[in-house]
Amino acid sequence: MNDLDVVGKAPGFKKPELSQAKLEELPRVKVMDEKGGFRDAEITGERPLTIYVDKHEIVTLMTLGGEPELLTLGYLYNQRIIHDLREIRSIQVDWDVDASVVTTWNGIDGLQERLGQRTVTTGCGQGTIYGSILDELENIELSSVRFSQEIFYNLLKRIKDYNEVYKRSGSVHGCALCQEDEVLVFIEDVGRHNAVDAIAGKMLLEGMNGKDKLFYTTGRLTSEMVLKVAQMGIPILISRSGVTQMGLELARKTGVTLISRAGGKHFLVYHGFDTLELDAKPSL
Amino acid sequence: MNDLDVVGKAPGFKKPELSQAKLEELPRVKVMDEKGGFRDAEITGERPLTIYVDKHEIVTLMTLGGEPELLTLGYLYNQRIIHDLREIRSIQVDWDVDASVVTTWNGIDGLQERLGQRTVTTGCGQGTIYGSILDELENIELSSVRFSQEIFYNLLKRIKDYNEVYKRSGSVHGCALCQEDEVLVFIEDVGRHNAVDAIAGKMLLEGMNGKDKLFYTTGRLTSEMVLKVAQMGIPILISRSGVTQMGLELARKTGVTLISRAGGKHFLVYHGFDTLELDAKPSL
Repeated sequence: MNDLDVVGKAPGFKKPELSQAKLEELPRVKVMDEKGGFRDAEITGERPLTIYVDKHEIVTLMTLGGEPELLTLGYLYNQRIIHDLREIRSIQVDWDVDASVVTTWNGIDGLQERLGQRTVTTGCGQGTIYGSILDELENIELSSVRFSQEIFYNLLKRIKDYNEVYKRSGSVHGCALCQEDEVLVFIEDVGRHNAVDAIAGKMLLEGMNGKDKLFYTTGRLTSEMVLKVAQMGIPILISRSGVTQMGLELARKTGVTLISRAGGKHFLVYHGFDTLELDAKPSL
Repeated sequence: MNDLDVVGKAPGFKKPELSQAKLEELPRVKVMDEKGGFRDAEITGERPLTIYVDKHEIVTLMTLGGEPELLTLGYLYNQRIIHDLREIRSIQVDWDVDASVVTTWNGIDGLQERLGQRTVTTGCGQGTIYGSILDELENIELSSVRFSQEIFYNLLKRIKDYNEVYKRSGSVHGCALCQEDEVLVFIEDVGRHNAVDAIAGKMLLEGMNGKDKLFYTTGRLTSEMVLKVAQMGIPILISRSGVTQMGLELARKTGVTLISRAGGKHFLVYHGFDTLELDAKPSL
């Protein structure tokens, strides 16, 4: 994402027109508890959203619907269907037909072929981008960073206030783009890949650079998660949960610092032992 | 999965030859805690496994590797690449090359075309089977069942003893196939869709019918989860976590009973209010 910080701020640049089709309300349904009592409960929204680019159907994502335009943008970017924000003329989401309609200025070269290519590398939720993106690893260069433990603890405190939908109905993953101890963007979705994609969309749209950012997720640090964050140029990845073997391997290859089990004063660093300046070690 | 209970037990039927390439050991790595102390920690294995059918590359899945042969079998079945166990001659997993090599007796008709078809319906981990499988909903007929709350509580107690990898390193989803208060099969994997597929593979291999079974998962009850369980002919789906809107809609369409937030004496029924016989209501 080398051009993220340039494109959005280029003089004369015209931002794409985006609809504002955020779904806010959580659906409520009747549930029965273990005593046979009935009550209302909120459940996590999950709706299909089919992305069309210049009238070609690209994919159907299941989403909470909180940021459908950013999700569309980030998905197209992370799948390398678009390479530059300037290609996009507009994104119009219409929940009446569960569609996100993308119009480009000049069409996408070889769109059909690229859709065909994805087949083999797509792996039932795990290896979605495995084959194609792994080749790009060589080109990733992350800046080496130092980060204060004290500021890190402040950040963890602030993140705790987010996770709204999670607290209300569960069943979502939250992802946050952070700088120092501030949460710049927080997005929840039923799949964490959607949340990551939506944040990538936000970065692309706003011309944000990843190199001085941290990425937080409630979900596990799997291979795909690490790859996506590395692609976004973000050097530090934090999770409330654990790390998988391939996630760690890819962190070592790309240089992403991996901090897991982060909550309260606790955390475990899996890669990048020098990144945190331990200036606020808890007393025994 | 109407033929599940027939095929595996048909006279003269020859089971496919399966390798025994279970990965048992969890990798250990060095981690640093918040006090700057280093120690060894287990992390969740996550390895790529590329499935080949008669020398055609089908997909690369990221897996814990606990049941690679069952995963291969269930994946091919749930993706409708095979329709019958009798098509399979052998499944040989070789971790030296991260490959699962499937040989069929007579080849798969139209394999290339079917691989192509998956492209559009594949949705970055969420909508993997959305498009193609939704059409099959019409054909699903689940048996209506009654189940005792007392036996249900016993089952929850037994399930607590599983989740081994989870307890040791986190980062996995566990799925169980149950009957009455017994856990027949328990499989963990880095993605819950893998765990479901592996259980489907086990059912196919052993000729098990879903109609008197319960399916438990640590993960959320999303649309895809409900669909897969309905396809397997299992009438009751239980989760430790929550339910999404599409998961509930599909449960209403297919008749799957949805019980979420199940743990200890607590649970919430989202669909199928009559399934549980409330013969063990906790006192106030």
